[in-house]
Amino acid sequence: MLDTAANPQLNAHGELLHLLSIEGLPRDVLMRILDTAVPFSEVAEREVKKVPLLRGKSVFNLFFENSTRTRTTFEIAAKRLSADVINLNINTSSASKGESLLDTVDNLAAMQADMFVVRHASSGAPYLIAQHLAATQREHIRVINAGDGRHAHPTQGLLDMYTIRHYKKDFTNLTIAVVGDILHSRVARSQIHALITLGVPEVRVIAPKTLLPIGVERMGVRVFNDMKEGLRGVDVVMMLRLQNERMQGALLPSPQEYFKSYGLTPEKLALAKPDAIVMHPGPMNRGVEIDSAVADGKQAVILPQVTFGIAVRMAVMAMLGGG
Amino acid sequence: MLDTAANPQLNAHGELLHLLSIEGLPRDVLMRILDTAVPFSEVAEREVKKVPLLRGKSVFNLFFENSTRTRTTFEIAAKRLSADVINLNINTSSASKGESLLDTVDNLAAMQADMFVVRHASSGAPYLIAQHLAATQREHIRVINAGDGRHAHPTQGLLDMYTIRHYKKDFTNLTIAVVGDILHSRVARSQIHALITLGVPEVRVIAPKTLLPIGVERMGVRVFNDMKEGLRGVDVVMMLRLQNERMQGALLPSPQEYFKSYGLTPEKLALAKPDAIVMHPGPMNRGVEIDSAVADGKQAVILPQVTFGIAVRMAVMAMLGGG
Amino acid sequence: MLDTAANPQLNAHGELLHLLSIEGLPRDVLMRILDTAVPFSEVAEREVKKVPLLRGKSVFNLFFENSTRTRTTFEIAAKRLSADVINLNINTSSASKGESLLDTVDNLAAMQADMFVVRHASSGAPYLIAQHLAATQREHIRVINAGDGRHAHPTQGLLDMYTIRHYKKDFTNLTIAVVGDILHSRVARSQIHALITLGVPEVRVIAPKTLLPIGVERMGVRVFNDMKEGLRGVDVVMMLRLQNERMQGALLPSPQEYFKSYGLTPEKLALAKPDAIVMHPGPMNRGVEIDSAVADGKQAVILPQVTFGIAVRMAVMAMLGGG
Repeated sequence: MLDTAANPQLNAHGELLHLLSIEGLPRDVLMRILDTAVPFSEVAEREVKKVPLLRGKSVFNLFFENSTRTRTTFEIAAKRLSADVINLNINTSSASKGESLLDTVDNLAAMQADMFVVRHASSGAPYLIAQHLAATQREHIRVINAGDGRHAHPTQGLLDMYTIRHYKKDFTNLTIAVVGDILHSRVARSQIHALITLGVPEVRVIAPKTLLPIGVERMGVRVFNDMKEGLRGVDVVMMLRLQNERMQGALLPSPQEYFKSYGLTPEKLALAKPDAIVMHPGPMNRGVEIDSAVADGKQAVILPQVTFGIAVRMAVMAMLGGG
Repeated sequence: MLDTAANPQLNAHGELLHLLSIEGLPRDVLMRILDTAVPFSEVAEREVKKVPLLRGKSVFNLFFENSTRTRTTFEIAAKRLSADVINLNINTSSASKGESLLDTVDNLAAMQADMFVVRHASSGAPYLIAQHLAATQREHIRVINAGDGRHAHPTQGLLDMYTIRHYKKDFTNLTIAVVGDILHSRVARSQIHALITLGVPEVRVIAPKTLLPIGVERMGVRVFNDMKEGLRGVDVVMMLRLQNERMQGALLPSPQEYFKSYGLTPEKLALAKPDAIVMHPGPMNRGVEIDSAVADGKQAVILPQVTFGIAVRMAVMAMLGGG
Repeated sequence: MLDTAANPQLNAHGELLHLLSIEGLPRDVLMRILDTAVPFSEVAEREVKKVPLLRGKSVFNLFFENSTRTRTTFEIAAKRLSADVINLNINTSSASKGESLLDTVDNLAAMQADMFVVRHASSGAPYLIAQHLAATQREHIRVINAGDGRHAHPTQGLLDMYTIRHYKKDFTNLTIAVVGDILHSRVARSQIHALITLGVPEVRVIAPKTLLPIGVERMGVRVFNDMKEGLRGVDVVMMLRLQNERMQGALLPSPQEYFKSYGLTPEKLALAKPDAIVMHPGPMNRGVEIDSAVADGKQAVILPQVTFGIAVRMAVMAMLGGG
């Protein structure tokens, strides 16, 4: 992973230049993003779901790793801001002609790009791009990390915070559990950094030992290996997706065994506060990490997360690219 | 196939909510679509081929089965109505992550979709989606079936009706033959339902026994196994595409044999009325179901079908989504 | 290769109908394109990078050969002209259903296309399309060749001319070398025709004998097999990409050997004039045909080429399709 000590996502005045990671963003920047998203969530309710904030801007969806779902949310957000959107699935293109990441970036920058939305299998790729743009005097091109390796997925983290604030109003009196494959999850990293920064007094992680990063406690979380214990009295349950590729192999016994211990069932959910909400970044593995009765139940706010995700992405794009 | 008795494509006032199948649509709805398409066919002749009817609306092309041609016609139609279009080829995306059809639909609905254009290999998938949207109080999202399994391809049926009306003015004095692989053809099903509903007095199907569904007569058609007999005196010849996958296997002897018996040649066409028109949904297998001399001949209206197809799709989209 | 004697890209008044090849275009047409591109390069510097010249027009990117990079430049150019852009990667679509090139063209024409941007592995395919459109009375649909086989890549040639004029002002006092795999390069063909037409007094080609077409001298160029000799005193070095597929096989010893003889290093570049510029159509094979010290050095104008490429493509599209 890159050294991100020199935080390239903020300028000298502490204003957002890029969105690369939640780690390193101060509370007031996070709150400003959430506040900006509120009116955008109203745009989506209108007859004409469009505002001209990014009219004539070129937004490039640079997906070095396939993800139709995430790409779609950014594409919609950019189109509702009236930007021109260019989708690039790079594994099937120049990369296969042997061009390097930075040559690709240089080329797209030369096409007068205004914004890169980057998904990459390697942790740190969006940082590398942002640093390269700075080094080549093109920091007017903004970078949004749409998920890099196991590192970060900051817009997912932000939409989760928007969702929590929407339902719970205040972060400073909550107990929140993040459940599942913490070890491999960029989503979990972004969520935990955001929760801590926003002042959530108790953040718990619940996972088998094999799916916990070593030293996770230093992030400021309490660790639980027993799900029932960990869920007791929480206000928010944030489930993680169990990647299919983890289900085979040495880390886990079987999807059925996993579900028994770490799947969210109505019985386990009953241990949380009665008004606890259940979140999931999607796509869900029903019957693996979550029971359908919970996924479709009254406490689930999984679909509102998606809706808020569009508003949050519009807010980030507008803040970065709105001139 | 789903039970479509409860017709979810019409509301209590008999207005079109979704376009799922021609079966079950009354004559006046079909005529209203055809009438609405007329001015849209003029939009395409203008210098600026655009009207703002769907401005700010989000149209999702949900293609679970690859079809560049059909997707393109819907994409053009939506863009000429000023909609924002998002193309999703789902076989390569969430579906491969194991997400169910309805979870995908829920997610896209949560992104404030206005319209789903659905192509699916399974008969009934668009019905399932429409019923699910109703069950979840989101019937404001409209569904257009762009071809489902062997079931229906209603916009193809409608553009065929538009074409016939354009050239023949009146449906109620025509003899029309549908020729080819009736058994596997969703196009044939939609055509036959439309022709019968619009009052065509004699609808014939011409096919070898192995390519006819059992009990096809109950649809109201006359069956011919001999093409020369079946073409005698018809006003319209509607050829079907012979799917490549049918050409191997037990149902057919060989493409050459098929062409000899059921390929439309100038000689066979001479048995129809002198002013008979020849239609084909495309893409054509020249030399298999149709001779190039016919495909490119004076009686062919195959390219006008494509042109009218854009207008008909614009009409359907405008009726469903125009507020 | 097709007989292009009857030049279908100019009408009876010598005006541009299609852009198929630089060969056969008179000097004043080339100059008019370059002049038209100048204001478009300023559009890209604006806050709102959009002009309404092609509003309501349908531009089809017809890519029968995959090229994300080239497709992207045309897509951006068309969107900045406010056109509706439809991307079609035909290898995965109708073509796989066995539809012929001309049937595909007929179909898209019937959808009221205004412009086809065509990339095809077969030399002459865009000519074939233009001739077919003329034969079927649809010459109002304009064709732009985005690279056909080994034949031509005219917008690349034009953007190269724009770049040379930008840095060197006048073509008529220059010595220019084109270096690399001339034999297989459509880019080289377009460049050489353009340079000769625009009055460059000395055009050199530098390549090993195995990568030179027989009789290349008849194009009006001086041939050098020794790179050092060929570079002596030139104003412009135009490097070509060495296709990966050439690196294996009998034509070349190895990438390392090739680099030793024909790779552009600072040492070799020192033989050119001190103010010589270095060009490359991209994507570059660093360490094969060009040293990184040169690619990223002060004399390289490789990224400006990309920027000018958008302006030149906008100019061509506006001239062809702007009414």
